Amino acid sequence: MPGKNPPVRSEEGSYVSYVIGIDLGGTKIIAALADENGRILGRATAETRAHEGAEKGLERIASTVEAAALAAGLGPRGAAAIGIGSPGPLDIRRGMILDAPNLKWKQVPLRDWLVQRFGRPVVLTNDCKAGGLGELRYGAGRGAREMVYFGIGTGVGGAVIQNGQITYGHTLNAGEIGHIVVDLDGPDCACGAQGCLEAIASGAGIGRAGERLAREAAARGAALTEETPGARLLRLVDGDPTKVHGGHVAQAAAAGDPGAQAIMMRAARAIGAAAGSMMNALGPEVVVIGGGVMAKNAEAFLPVIQEVAARVALPGCGAPVKLAALGEESVVMGAIALALDLAKGQG
Amino acid sequence: MPGKNPPVRSEEGSYVSYVIGIDLGGTKIIAALADENGRILGRATAETRAHEGAEKGLERIASTVEAAALAAGLGPRGAAAIGIGSPGPLDIRRGMILDAPNLKWKQVPLRDWLVQRFGRPVVLTNDCKAGGLGELRYGAGRGAREMVYFGIGTGVGGAVIQNGQITYGHTLNAGEIGHIVVDLDGPDCACGAQGCLEAIASGAGIGRAGERLAREAAARGAALTEETPGARLLRLVDGDPTKVHGGHVAQAAAAGDPGAQAIMMRAARAIGAAAGSMMNALGPEVVVIGGGVMAKNAEAFLPVIQEVAARVALPGCGAPVKLAALGEESVVMGAIALALDLAKGQG
Repeated sequence: MPGKNPPVRSEEGSYVSYVIGIDLGGTKIIAALADENGRILGRATAETRAHEGAEKGLERIASTVEAAALAAGLGPRGAAAIGIGSPGPLDIRRGMILDAPNLKWKQVPLRDWLVQRFGRPVVLTNDCKAGGLGELRYGAGRGAREMVYFGIGTGVGGAVIQNGQITYGHTLNAGEIGHIVVDLDGPDCACGAQGCLEAIASGAGIGRAGERLAREAAARGAALTEETPGARLLRLVDGDPTKVHGGHVAQAAAAGDPGAQAIMMRAARAIGAAAGSMMNALGPEVVVIGGGVMAKNAEAFLPVIQEVAARVALPGCGAPVKLAALGEESVVMGAIALALDLAKGQG
Repeated sequence: MPGKNPPVRSEEGSYVSYVIGIDLGGTKIIAALADENGRILGRATAETRAHEGAEKGLERIASTVEAAALAAGLGPRGAAAIGIGSPGPLDIRRGMILDAPNLKWKQVPLRDWLVQRFGRPVVLTNDCKAGGLGELRYGAGRGAREMVYFGIGTGVGGAVIQNGQITYGHTLNAGEIGHIVVDLDGPDCACGAQGCLEAIASGAGIGRAGERLAREAAARGAALTEETPGARLLRLVDGDPTKVHGGHVAQAAAAGDPGAQAIMMRAARAIGAAAGSMMNALGPEVVVIGGGVMAKNAEAFLPVIQEVAARVALPGCGAPVKLAALGEESVVMGAIALALDLAKGQG
């Protein structure tokens, strides 16, 4: 089997046989083997079951990698390198998960564990940064070298990509563009600040705004009509505002609830303003917007985001805003890109 | 005279004898000769007299350079390179001023004119970018390689500095951090967008907010007391709100006008939010804040900016916020730094 051989690298270091990419998600692990062009040779997925703890979790990552290798008919120890995208916060320098709320894992030496397990070099990065790199190399940002990526999901993450590589900055924590302030007096954010993009445009932020709207509607009691802002939303949760999630707000907006529509529109405007702000600050070639909330609301969101971003961008600073193209594959593809860079000595 | 000799460069390209830096400002030209450590050898200033047109203006730049060279006892044609910071918008690639509202010059080939005049290589950049680089190399950012610079003046400009160099991005127009949106529903900005940092925190933005405040106060007429927000401000402009400028607002705030104080506080909070946002996005080692409005209000502004930025920065993203140290020398020092980089082959 070819995979039993050590990875082949030419003198120029430009050829690698295959690499492994891993997406460690809060609910799902995706592992894939890919050739030097990022073509998938084998792929496997498993539930994360983070609640079982880090030790079992690490074993599940390993067995998912082994299943992907088996699917490819290759040995995992024959890979030139391994890349992994993980929820943060991470200590990139030490290759550790510090205290990831999505996994409830603390101080897990993910990189070294994988190095030991598979005997191959490993590179770890944040899931959103990997997602951005995946979109750059294989998705909506293909061909660009300067890109800003927004991942609009339950939270808002992102990546700044410059010269084809993820920007970490001096702090090693650059790219946290969910916590750009877009509304100085805006709603409280989970981070402790006010008016962050995440507080307005994330699934959680949309849900909290929806809950406030539903409460206001509920307070109207008998005066409530079909056309009252929040009335449709309140009905979706059987009259209980505490049950409101982001998805309900989107649903009520689609059904014509003017209050829910205003919340969704404000979320899109906030993303557009942040995208335009990043164009002015960083001069990217393209802005790519992904994540589950974006995917579900793309039709309503994208034109608003594009219009606001174009208005915010100064003359000479504008860039196209594109929808992410890889869906839930973006993180594993970014992990593959990182592994390829590492194997080629560019990581 | 040593200046009559060609510039001395070692094999490693690390030694240059001296360079010329120029700050082309709206009202004043500063030219200076400096050695490879940025030590000023000679310096001259002149009025810009931009209204006399670009042709005379270019001659005034040249004569200011010659005066600085004379002061140093060196020949301008002996300089290893020339750097110049100019108001924009510029076309960096072609070395041109496109259409600078501060100078009312259009399509001026500044770089090539200087090359022809002095026979030395010339590098052109925006004044605010030069100011940021000056602060990095010789001012408040000394020792850092990753820095974000805000220039808070009549407008708001800035610079993103990464790996010790000005970031231009794919558009070549990166660094326009005056046009980060910090208030989605905020006041109109001169750029056509809403709620940009510049609309809230620039001298012009503070002035416009002051004018609104004074109008509200004037509308109260007889009901106006000493304690009414805007009353003191209105008195400073002899009851004519159209006369309000940013300086009046600062003055009224210092005199205890609660409305003027709120405007100044909001400006400081906006700068703090933008600084914290840039920490999260870019992970700089330090944020430096300069410009005339900042210098005049440093005592009131800096603690607020620092507090808000620290709250906005995520754990692991924080960086110190420092006051610019070079005052009105920042642009010419940045121009010197650029000239040194060019002479050393790093420009």
